[in-house]
Amino acid sequence: MLENISSTKVAGGWHKQYTHPATSTHCTMRFAVFLPPGASETNKVPVLYWLSGLTCTDENFMQKAGAFKKAAELGIAIVAPDTSPRGDNVPNDDNYDFGQGAGFYLNATQAPFNTHFNMYDYVVDELPELIEQHFPVTSTKAISGHSMGGHGALMVALKNPKAYVSASAFSPIVNPINCPWGIKAFTGYLGNDKSLWAQYDTCELMKLAKQDDYLPMLATQGGADGFLEEQLKPQNLVAVAHEKAYPLTLEMQEGYDHSYFFISSFIDQHLLFHSQFLTA
Amino acid sequence: MLENISSTKVAGGWHKQYTHPATSTHCTMRFAVFLPPGASETNKVPVLYWLSGLTCTDENFMQKAGAFKKAAELGIAIVAPDTSPRGDNVPNDDNYDFGQGAGFYLNATQAPFNTHFNMYDYVVDELPELIEQHFPVTSTKAISGHSMGGHGALMVALKNPKAYVSASAFSPIVNPINCPWGIKAFTGYLGNDKSLWAQYDTCELMKLAKQDDYLPMLATQGGADGFLEEQLKPQNLVAVAHEKAYPLTLEMQEGYDHSYFFISSFIDQHLLFHSQFLTA
Repeated sequence: MLENISSTKVAGGWHKQYTHPATSTHCTMRFAVFLPPGASETNKVPVLYWLSGLTCTDENFMQKAGAFKKAAELGIAIVAPDTSPRGDNVPNDDNYDFGQGAGFYLNATQAPFNTHFNMYDYVVDELPELIEQHFPVTSTKAISGHSMGGHGALMVALKNPKAYVSASAFSPIVNPINCPWGIKAFTGYLGNDKSLWAQYDTCELMKLAKQDDYLPMLATQGGADGFLEEQLKPQNLVAVAHEKAYPLTLEMQEGYDHSYFFISSFIDQHLLFHSQFLTA
Repeated sequence: MLENISSTKVAGGWHKQYTHPATSTHCTMRFAVFLPPGASETNKVPVLYWLSGLTCTDENFMQKAGAFKKAAELGIAIVAPDTSPRGDNVPNDDNYDFGQGAGFYLNATQAPFNTHFNMYDYVVDELPELIEQHFPVTSTKAISGHSMGGHGALMVALKNPKAYVSASAFSPIVNPINCPWGIKAFTGYLGNDKSLWAQYDTCELMKLAKQDDYLPMLATQGGADGFLEEQLKPQNLVAVAHEKAYPLTLEMQEGYDHSYFFISSFIDQHLLFHSQFLTA
């Protein structure tokens, strides 16, 4: 069922890519996994799930983030899914911010997207089950991501607070119901009933969080990010966290943009943050 | 004359790309530079030149090698030129291993390549002159590269031993006159007179090196590199180095392939190697 399509030694561990037929998205999905040195059936390691941003595949983070040395040192596996269902039979859109490469980590309700665009179920249930079945990992999980994937990571963690020990994000879209990227995607995938939208909005979900379900959350945002004001709006989440005394840290990094150069500059800090909880 | 086309903060320093009209290659050339934090006219830093392999541009190393944190810590600038002249007026070839993206860091003598394909002059003279004129760097230089660029780095250092303090390479083509990639390129760029070929062959150049001109040299080679036996042949260079007591270290790394995953696994060691001499 899992087909291994690449296997490359890196930082003493292994980067591997797989494809498999996915039941949640009804298409062939590809993902990548980094296994740190020494991971084995008798030495299982915890997993950080990484959700990428618009236009990305499983490859962007793995090739550009420079995460492997620190993950190897800390003994953490990393799993990176694709950002949407793919294929000739999967509906698409000419723009970069909707359709293939832009799944927004939700379950679509609107035709023609509702058959395949179930990335929420894929990321929350199907993929971890597969990973825990086939790789030398424990069920201890953290989650992180970038931009659309930062939205995905924080939203998924808030909806499943017992499933993850910690959550973090780079440049997350924290309030998709109030920004152009989110409004376009949620309208297309979920229709016009905005009550459905709130269940995938990090700000709205944090408002409903119970104190017993709080989990440590870190967000890092570049001060020179061209999407900051119109699309990302981290201050909206900081306001909710303040109101709720939610353990969110927002680190603003002056001069940094929205690119993988930014992510590579701070990925070690995120790995160290998660490591406290993953290996506790 | 220099046109800045991107400027991105990374690891506390800056990644910048420029284009300029080049006199050696008679076309517009692009290069990238990483400036470590604190580099300024009153705090000039030494430079590591990086020469990339077949099909690459200035971007592959900068996006995938994960070199910036260590270079920032060590206070080393990195300059990455393109791998050939480019443009609609520049001759090309349908194959990946000849023409644009495959300049082999030599001066071509054969039409139609001899007008533009003068990457040797570009890398040895024109680019360092430009860099030292426009950026906060000293004239202290080291050189490194990968595959075709590993050939370039070792060959350029052997021909200009006073210009560089050290040289290194990942998976270098050390003996191009005796491998398919080299024979094809040297025939196309230099013609059939093999006496011309030797002046760009690392093994042949090391045979002629005078002891006063020896410089520290490090090569790292993946043991699972699919090009090892037919194209790279590092043992040919080790034999010459042994014969001449040349200070070359070849590190074989079992299980690693020819990719940037391999380079990213060992780039810190190369930066530390060069740092000993660059900041001495």
